[in-house]
Amino acid sequence: MIRGLDHLAIAVSNLDEAVTLWQTVLGATVVHREVVVEQKVEVVMLKLGDLKIELLWPTSADSGVSKFLASRGPGLHHIAIQADSTQAELSRLSDAGVRLIDLHARVGAEGTHVGFLHPKALEGVLVELVEHGHERSR
Amino acid sequence: MIRGLDHLAIAVSNLDEAVTLWQTVLGATVVHREVVVEQKVEVVMLKLGDLKIELLWPTSADSGVSKFLASRGPGLHHIAIQADSTQAELSRLSDAGVRLIDLHARVGAEGTHVGFLHPKALEGVLVELVEHGHERSR
Repeated sequence: MIRGLDHLAIAVSNLDEAVTLWQTVLGATVVHREVVVEQKVEVVMLKLGDLKIELLWPTSADSGVSKFLASRGPGLHHIAIQADSTQAELSRLSDAGVRLIDLHARVGAEGTHVGFLHPKALEGVLVELVEHGHERSR
Repeated sequence: MIRGLDHLAIAVSNLDEAVTLWQTVLGATVVHREVVVEQKVEVVMLKLGDLKIELLWPTSADSGVSKFLASRGPGLHHIAIQADSTQAELSRLSDAGVRLIDLHARVGAEGTHVGFLHPKALEGVLVELVEHGHERSR
């Protein structure tokens, strides 16, 4: 089952400057910072009220986020939706003929299980499915 | 005071097709449809769990959304954040030297009071402030 928003992700050209900007302009607070090796990004998770905002910064020139920044510049990158089971949703969507980036769930930030639909599936909007309950203890 | 997310807005090239897409792929439901004359857009508000998604379709070639579609194509357009007072936040931001589109709150969808920061204020992310409590009776 698909639930509501997990977080919004924003591609940034300078991670520390972007953190400062969201803190000073809108009063966001930092809750987490992590390098996600599998996705070649460093992420900072912010909170703005109940909203979680993930700032995404590429750690490699061949990261998908690097390509996004090169073609579109910094800005809204994707929306992440909570799913009870990322794999069950990916399988359902694949069976329905929906175009996907990931046929199989993989490990995302904080140990969540994630999978991306293809942006063409929702006319230019990149959607990530996020399944919690697998978080690493810190 | 700034609170959490009000809604996500997505620019679409065909409103009815986009509604069908979000309904069939992710199970979103339609809650509201309106032409916002002041902003030269027709909007459909969807719900996906707790998340409100506003599909934006231009009603005029000189709408800001028309220009967005022409330059970037359909996709994530802006994020709308709830504020207790849109005007108070715009004044605070202006005093702090933050670049704004609107110095004064104006009427948005469903009679809310809204105001936009300039996308350069948050490095490419267009943010709308939304103040509820002025909704028109239907």
